Amino acid sequence: MPAQVYLDYQSSKPVDPRVVDAMRPWFTERFGNPSSLHLDGDEATDALERSRERVAQFIGANKDEIIFTSGATESNNLAIIGYVTRNRKRGDHIVIAESEHISVHNIAKAIEKQGFKVSKVGVDQYGRVSVEKLRKKIIDTTILVSIGWASSEIGTVQPVQEIADVLHGRGMTLHSDAVAAEGLVPIDVRKVPIDLLTLSSNDIYGPKGLGALYIRRNVNIAPIMPGGGQERGLRSGTEAMPAIVGMAAAADIMASEMPTEVLRLAHYRDRLIEGVLGRIPKSHLNGHPRERLPNNAHFRFDAIEGESLLLSLKDKGIAVSTGSACSSKTLEPSHTLISCGLLHEEAHGSLEFTFGRWSRPTDVDRVLEVLPGIVERLRSLSPLYEKEAKA
Amino acid sequence: MPAQVYLDYQSSKPVDPRVVDAMRPWFTERFGNPSSLHLDGDEATDALERSRERVAQFIGANKDEIIFTSGATESNNLAIIGYVTRNRKRGDHIVIAESEHISVHNIAKAIEKQGFKVSKVGVDQYGRVSVEKLRKKIIDTTILVSIGWASSEIGTVQPVQEIADVLHGRGMTLHSDAVAAEGLVPIDVRKVPIDLLTLSSNDIYGPKGLGALYIRRNVNIAPIMPGGGQERGLRSGTEAMPAIVGMAAAADIMASEMPTEVLRLAHYRDRLIEGVLGRIPKSHLNGHPRERLPNNAHFRFDAIEGESLLLSLKDKGIAVSTGSACSSKTLEPSHTLISCGLLHEEAHGSLEFTFGRWSRPTDVDRVLEVLPGIVERLRSLSPLYEKEAKA
Repeated sequence: MPAQVYLDYQSSKPVDPRVVDAMRPWFTERFGNPSSLHLDGDEATDALERSRERVAQFIGANKDEIIFTSGATESNNLAIIGYVTRNRKRGDHIVIAESEHISVHNIAKAIEKQGFKVSKVGVDQYGRVSVEKLRKKIIDTTILVSIGWASSEIGTVQPVQEIADVLHGRGMTLHSDAVAAEGLVPIDVRKVPIDLLTLSSNDIYGPKGLGALYIRRNVNIAPIMPGGGQERGLRSGTEAMPAIVGMAAAADIMASEMPTEVLRLAHYRDRLIEGVLGRIPKSHLNGHPRERLPNNAHFRFDAIEGESLLLSLKDKGIAVSTGSACSSKTLEPSHTLISCGLLHEEAHGSLEFTFGRWSRPTDVDRVLEVLPGIVERLRSLSPLYEKEAKA
Repeated sequence: MPAQVYLDYQSSKPVDPRVVDAMRPWFTERFGNPSSLHLDGDEATDALERSRERVAQFIGANKDEIIFTSGATESNNLAIIGYVTRNRKRGDHIVIAESEHISVHNIAKAIEKQGFKVSKVGVDQYGRVSVEKLRKKIIDTTILVSIGWASSEIGTVQPVQEIADVLHGRGMTLHSDAVAAEGLVPIDVRKVPIDLLTLSSNDIYGPKGLGALYIRRNVNIAPIMPGGGQERGLRSGTEAMPAIVGMAAAADIMASEMPTEVLRLAHYRDRLIEGVLGRIPKSHLNGHPRERLPNNAHFRFDAIEGESLLLSLKDKGIAVSTGSACSSKTLEPSHTLISCGLLHEEAHGSLEFTFGRWSRPTDVDRVLEVLPGIVERLRSLSPLYEKEAKA
């Protein structure tokens, strides 16, 4: 569907036209409020509960373990702030990974202001949390560990099962922001004993402005936004029915297509990684060489800035990212790359390619056709590179 | 568009098909993230800012005074919690009206737990705040007054201009939840010196799951949901572009059609009020006889329950409400009606009719055709009515 060469699926995804079709009647003829007692209200209530069931099935959860929210940011807020607020008597310490998405870091800052203590567990050069290091961060007062399932930026997948094993039986709650992983790696809460899981609708080609939070039975959280008491009192506000039906449709489509789709995307990823590393001198892969998302290729190029690369590719009709879209308009280097031990200048030379549902083999061809020349041209203008070459 | 006789526009509105058409491309071909630096991101940024301008124009605001949220509940939370959190040093007292929507009451409870003091100003028998009573509630430590522009339930419009006049020059901030009023009464923040104003998208026939908060320049609030720092740091989370474009389209349509549309709706309302009060004995109008929303007719009928009436009308294909959709699934009587001085049994005998964009004259005919018979039949089964009749 994207007209240009779009390789920034991590920042934003088109909504699948089948999802838009599923949503359409809920905007117009089926527009009831689930709280209403008449027929339109009944119809909306049915659709709400069926949608909840379909999203639950997508991750192996029970229907009553899913709460709809306005998106991943709100789900992360509800999971972390809602959990610590409700469980403060049990302890005041949480652990997050240094490589977490900015939204988790900012939530951590917010709860620190409320008197909670936050420890950050480091990651290795590939962005992976070491289970041993995590074990050392856990103290008597730790009540929550929050580690993203995968990095939306460098694509590294965390050892979630091993992390869950470390915490198991110690009365601690494990939250994972699964936004980068959903639809790309299998997530089944029956297999991995995770307690709280953040999902976003757009990341499985559903509409933006909707997310969900999985809350395992017997895990208690407090609401963060008081109001009319919808979603069992945990998330007030009239339910956004078209978006909820859309997320459910997106989950169904993803569940059925994922097994073959991830192989297709991994093939593009591998061709791109091989092509770039083979054709461009002094180029490096960021993130884990094997434990990475099937759609993610993240590089750094010595002595040039990712932003110059991005703008040159933009001129050629190729859309990519320098890292997290949420901080791309600032000039700060990626904190994820810094946490992997990269120097500031190395972090600044990075470029992220992410494939998705409408990616074509020719997208890889096009990048391999133009990128080596762009890198060469930018380096020819770089005093840094000249110096390096002479050294 | 509604197939049955739908007279519950207050609870939920269909999205205007013109709005759905405006949204459609933003789901599929134009799906960029405004934070991205490539062409799709630029396009999204432009659309975001143009949409902000269109929503601002709808209420006479400046573009930089509008923040998009996930809906009215979040806007109310951001306005009240965000304001008191940020301005605590200036005082710890707020005033709300007894007739406020449940979401405002629950927000008030939440801030009371944080140590703030909340006073509630009573309303008269028509649900109107007395400016004199309000004046008496204001003390040295009052920093915020929150009064809804109109009641979504009984339709009474508040004397917002007079309330603003009372507060003017006293260093106090005025918030108004305008959800029930928007699109039905003129709202112009250049004329009424309101500081914070809650808007919802669906209440002007835009998509659910989106709202806005008007924040007058120089009024400072704290964010309530940390994250990626979108919306000038006041509302984190990737922007829900299709919904935002939809709300802007809805605002444009509403602005152009409102002057004639409110006359049409008021005509239906008046015919219904006249017909019901004229044909049904012991029926009464709730809310203000003149200062009421042009689309709202709210009645009570002695000796019968609103819920029985609602279910009988449902059988005839007529959708109405007993009051606020947000509390319609509880058996509590409406706190708004109680605040007007009604007895519990009177509040329970209430029924709300609200007209909207697809209302037809025949909707009024149909209600007047069936309602008298329903009331008569229910009363014939009511021991309460028999007793009254004998008395």
